[in-house]
Amino acid sequence: MSDTQAATDHYWMQHALALAKRGQCNTTPNPCVGCVLVRDGVIVGEGHSQQAGGPHAEVMAMRMAGDAARGATAYVTLEPCSHHGRTPPCADGLIAAGVVRVVAALRDPNPLVAGRGLSRLNDAGIPAQAGVLRDAALEHHKGFLSRMVRGRPWLRIKMAASLDGRTALADGQSQWITGPAARADVQRLRARSCAMLTGIGTVLADDPQLTVRDPQGVDWQGRQPLRVVVDSRLRTPPTAKLLQTPGVLIVAAQGDAARRQALQAAGAEVMLLAGTDGRVDLAALLDELGRRGMNEVTVEAGGALAGVLLQAGLVDEVILYQAPVLIGNGRGVAEFDLASLADKLTPRVFERRMVGDDQRITLRFTDAAALSGEAAQ
Amino acid sequence: MSDTQAATDHYWMQHALALAKRGQCNTTPNPCVGCVLVRDGVIVGEGHSQQAGGPHAEVMAMRMAGDAARGATAYVTLEPCSHHGRTPPCADGLIAAGVVRVVAALRDPNPLVAGRGLSRLNDAGIPAQAGVLRDAALEHHKGFLSRMVRGRPWLRIKMAASLDGRTALADGQSQWITGPAARADVQRLRARSCAMLTGIGTVLADDPQLTVRDPQGVDWQGRQPLRVVVDSRLRTPPTAKLLQTPGVLIVAAQGDAARRQALQAAGAEVMLLAGTDGRVDLAALLDELGRRGMNEVTVEAGGALAGVLLQAGLVDEVILYQAPVLIGNGRGVAEFDLASLADKLTPRVFERRMVGDDQRITLRFTDAAALSGEAAQ
Repeated sequence: MSDTQAATDHYWMQHALALAKRGQCNTTPNPCVGCVLVRDGVIVGEGHSQQAGGPHAEVMAMRMAGDAARGATAYVTLEPCSHHGRTPPCADGLIAAGVVRVVAALRDPNPLVAGRGLSRLNDAGIPAQAGVLRDAALEHHKGFLSRMVRGRPWLRIKMAASLDGRTALADGQSQWITGPAARADVQRLRARSCAMLTGIGTVLADDPQLTVRDPQGVDWQGRQPLRVVVDSRLRTPPTAKLLQTPGVLIVAAQGDAARRQALQAAGAEVMLLAGTDGRVDLAALLDELGRRGMNEVTVEAGGALAGVLLQAGLVDEVILYQAPVLIGNGRGVAEFDLASLADKLTPRVFERRMVGDDQRITLRFTDAAALSGEAAQ
Repeated sequence: MSDTQAATDHYWMQHALALAKRGQCNTTPNPCVGCVLVRDGVIVGEGHSQQAGGPHAEVMAMRMAGDAARGATAYVTLEPCSHHGRTPPCADGLIAAGVVRVVAALRDPNPLVAGRGLSRLNDAGIPAQAGVLRDAALEHHKGFLSRMVRGRPWLRIKMAASLDGRTALADGQSQWITGPAARADVQRLRARSCAMLTGIGTVLADDPQLTVRDPQGVDWQGRQPLRVVVDSRLRTPPTAKLLQTPGVLIVAAQGDAARRQALQAAGAEVMLLAGTDGRVDLAALLDELGRRGMNEVTVEAGGALAGVLLQAGLVDEVILYQAPVLIGNGRGVAEFDLASLADKLTPRVFERRMVGDDQRITLRFTDAAALSGEAAQ
């Protein structure tokens, strides 16, 4: 390939990724793919995945292009599908539309696709390849890839703390440590999450809703994430605010029939997932959330649940909003005990940026590049 | 004054400030002043204050210039002195050298000077003014100004912590949380400090020396800061490593004669400064350090002493080195209790920068601009 061709491919793939990001709050359990159709250096069609059951990115772009798709190159962030799901295979659609070349960022590790989309195109005489802006696409599709490759969601913990690492005073006061810009950013995190995960301590102390409220700057179509409560002994009150919005899963280790019925009557689903220690089996819970099609799950909980998840190695990412204040004695972001300082957790600092007066620090325990489903190169 | 003149004055004052910074580790209790002599747009002499008793910045610059000082403009970061100290008044020296104009960044709030240096020059027919790069000079001279204006040193707390605000595990393990670049930076902080302040808890737990060891990138002539231990009940062991280097002041609230003698025999000075609560009176201690000519004092202590100082409002600056690691349960940077989150400490973030893998965050409780000794404008 010529350098010019490579530069052109990067340029249009960047655009396809930008389209993909626009729709990321709405497509669960599907990945939000972006697609651009380019002919003679001009966009003739573009689009991104719609809500599950709705058209895929390629279909949106082909609809926009109409006959102009004939002779075009298609840029897609993920390999076009080859299987009949709720919509027909996009590979077939691209062939029928007369596209002459297909450039994908990533192979789709979904076992229903896994290279068959590209080979179907190649078999039809259409050059089709993957690998352009692969790292950026791995980053964008990390939730879907996690579920496909590991069978569980990308798990993110959101923390909001003072510079001295406090999330609340000892008596529980926590409103507000971080500023309005950080709190607005948290709404965007919730909006892109398939599920929110919290613990019974937070439910009893703060009685949160954990719903998305008016996220600014993202295309959000009113979808609320599943809210999941880790509640070993079913102590969630049936009057909890969380239950005012449908879509709550309460996961317990011990089931008291009366409590269970009361919570079910209040609209919650109750599930037993006991580990050998008599507490909720968190690894099994993540597998269950994977089975339910959850790609990205965000934890907003106290230090106890965060600590258990971190020490169990189940956390892929921490997003810490750090306010430039000192609080002194109070509650910590994560409760776990190290035997030796040598065991301290040393995630990669993926990003630091200011959000209002607060610093947003993204820490990674998992490298999105490890989620391609392909053997390491 | 023309715009060109103002720009020229800024340019040369910037240079004078850079000179002043070079000598800042060595001049205590004097301020480290910078001076440039400029004639026809060319530097004919420059210098900065030397060790106390040695020549002032103006003298260094005049020695370098010799006869070329005649007709030059002098740029100095602090008003030239007008009094006979260990050296004769610099204002007289500048007059004798034939300098034709004097530009100072700041008036010297030292009651022995306080405008008399400038008026002496003016009286001799030499235009002399203050105010060029005033804020930068206030920042540079903040320790000396604090002592002159408030009678006590600029108090800085150095903290080294994880992202979750821990300085050590519960069992005291603290080596190392921050990286080698941050630890080297701490040596520079010690080198510029007139005194280091710690608590008996740190002495008993870590047995530190608190001396300067080979600070990189600064002109350090081997001066060791006074080491001060807040030790209410005189529990410092006479074998403490701290005592291996002369220059230790142990401040107690209760004096047991035997312990006192043992510590004195080990080379320490012991002083009683009891507050009404039976503990060391920290405000009185700072006044005492001011009387002893301490301009900048750096605290390296545990959360207990840091918490008391912060809550007493005695802290001017916190420099927090934050390592991108998570430690979980452990010791906090500052132990104090708030009744309400509304009372949280909200210092100004003066600077953030990376030092190796760690972030160095400078928080200010005191604005150096408030230390000019002049009424607010």
